[in-house]
Amino acid sequence: MIPTFSWQSITENTGDNHLDFSVNINPLGIPDSVKAQLANLADIAGVYPDPNCNYLSSCLSEKYHVSPNHILCGNGADDLLYRLVFATNPKHAIVVEPTFEEYNRALELVGCEIHHYTVREENHFLLDKEVLSAIKADSDMMFLCNPNNPTGQLVNPLLLQEIIERCQDNHILLVVDECFMEFLPSWKEYTVKEIAALSKNLIVIDAFTKTYSLAGFRLGFCISGNTNLLSGMRLYGQDFAVSTPAQLAGICALMDRSYMQGTYHILSSERKWLLSELQKFPLKVYPSQSNFLLFQTADKHIRQKLFEKGIKVRDCSRFYGLGPEYCRIAVRTHNENIALIKILKQIYANEVGT
Amino acid sequence: MIPTFSWQSITENTGDNHLDFSVNINPLGIPDSVKAQLANLADIAGVYPDPNCNYLSSCLSEKYHVSPNHILCGNGADDLLYRLVFATNPKHAIVVEPTFEEYNRALELVGCEIHHYTVREENHFLLDKEVLSAIKADSDMMFLCNPNNPTGQLVNPLLLQEIIERCQDNHILLVVDECFMEFLPSWKEYTVKEIAALSKNLIVIDAFTKTYSLAGFRLGFCISGNTNLLSGMRLYGQDFAVSTPAQLAGICALMDRSYMQGTYHILSSERKWLLSELQKFPLKVYPSQSNFLLFQTADKHIRQKLFEKGIKVRDCSRFYGLGPEYCRIAVRTHNENIALIKILKQIYANEVGT
Repeated sequence: MIPTFSWQSITENTGDNHLDFSVNINPLGIPDSVKAQLANLADIAGVYPDPNCNYLSSCLSEKYHVSPNHILCGNGADDLLYRLVFATNPKHAIVVEPTFEEYNRALELVGCEIHHYTVREENHFLLDKEVLSAIKADSDMMFLCNPNNPTGQLVNPLLLQEIIERCQDNHILLVVDECFMEFLPSWKEYTVKEIAALSKNLIVIDAFTKTYSLAGFRLGFCISGNTNLLSGMRLYGQDFAVSTPAQLAGICALMDRSYMQGTYHILSSERKWLLSELQKFPLKVYPSQSNFLLFQTADKHIRQKLFEKGIKVRDCSRFYGLGPEYCRIAVRTHNENIALIKILKQIYANEVGT
Repeated sequence: MIPTFSWQSITENTGDNHLDFSVNINPLGIPDSVKAQLANLADIAGVYPDPNCNYLSSCLSEKYHVSPNHILCGNGADDLLYRLVFATNPKHAIVVEPTFEEYNRALELVGCEIHHYTVREENHFLLDKEVLSAIKADSDMMFLCNPNNPTGQLVNPLLLQEIIERCQDNHILLVVDECFMEFLPSWKEYTVKEIAALSKNLIVIDAFTKTYSLAGFRLGFCISGNTNLLSGMRLYGQDFAVSTPAQLAGICALMDRSYMQGTYHILSSERKWLLSELQKFPLKVYPSQSNFLLFQTADKHIRQKLFEKGIKVRDCSRFYGLGPEYCRIAVRTHNENIALIKILKQIYANEVGT
């Protein structure tokens, strides 16, 4: 027998009514500009999508000032990550940790030896110059997430420039994951997409998943001046990776002039508010440049306690170098953030009481 | 400057108004049951899709009488094909040709040696017992498309049973592609999905692309009793391969009780009509059990002549063992089929006249 159906049952939160702080997606939800065009899918999604994503690439090209030839779209950033690893088959790679665990998963599939370069907690997980000495000629590839997930830290642009140069000098392909970059209002000062389009040793991966809350549509893209690399990535998988709904959603999102302004407005005030409220509890909260906050707690059961009270937060045990004493929470809408703080107050009040 | 936008520009037929007989998709288009639910995407596609496609799998499980544990969904059949090849890394494979070229593309990526077993034109491309002698113990994998693309031929069920047994005896993983199976009203007599769910050496790949005209959504699935194989395929790529729109579309399509009945109605009468009309021209048309027809012509320029008159047909040069003298056309709606025949009449009238 098929279980009872609800639309929610085809999302990750199957049949679960928790308030979800574990996924770091834009709290504004799908842009209205995308919602308004969903009905058009009825006319166009019955045939194959454009395998080259030409129109979407031309929009991305205009936004980032790079040639469409230096852009490749994929079924989410993860599709591009696996293609990249399969197409290049690296033997030695550097991963700046703690970070998004999918880099390691992909690298392990091809038997790559991974050097985990771990940033220090004492330094609030901020990357410093020491990383340069870890970039050695025996590496084929290096992964850097900027701003980093789950720490929220942004790499100093001058240091990033040095990393890029050092990778170039050592013929190391540097992969910069900018999936959280555009939660920064001043992202244009920090993105290296234009530099990547001029380089053979640099590729930037980004997605619509987090910034435009299009996680369900699966849409990512990457930018590199290394057209051989992009051709190889095209080859390592099907031609029709990017669905028509994803292409439609991406184009509509890029045409939306107000959505990201609204995002900056809510994010800056809510992150500040949430940070100051969290600091009233016995939690060590790290500074973040993104739409999420990482905190450390002596109470390893905090996640379970929150869950029992209807709130999901991200367990950080699976991130290299972190453990169950770390939690990541998304910055959500004001009422949702209030709900989280209210429940934390209940939890800590009980503990003081016992 | 971004070029002028039309919704059609995000489909494969970017900016081209040809009547498309080259793609063999259900001529009825997206089921109304799917269209009616597209607006629901606004509520659910802002978060990640269910990575396990549990609800969709439970619907497939009920339809095919197999356990959900023996089902894996993917971003189209092609996503599953690449995962299968990457996860198993075959050294020697048999491909029954001429057939869908993607099997070879995937196998070549892993450096697999391919034995192309070619069915004979004299036999109308029907597979016969000779194939059994080609199944040898040094092979790791065998690909068989049933009914076959682009020939339209269905394998005799007794012969298929012998192939399955011979593959099992020789520890060869048999991959049966059933993407066109359900265009047969009596598909239940021919599908080997239930057998696959009981076997370690058999996997069936299928998709919603052709039968339900959901090509733009990207949705495929496979069935095998080899759960280790399915786990390996899960590993060779991202967790979130199947988008929310694809899951929604697949579920709605499976709940539609009348769509495939309408398909059988139109397909049987139109295929018959088209076949009889085509046979009035100097074309050799092969018998087909599917929603397309293969024909051979002495005129290697026929495709170009049709294109100039607004009709696209599939060039078969890229299919192993075929050449530019072969064309594949989809069976479309009656008015569209009339348009094709009318234009063929014009072309052949001109030729008689010259």
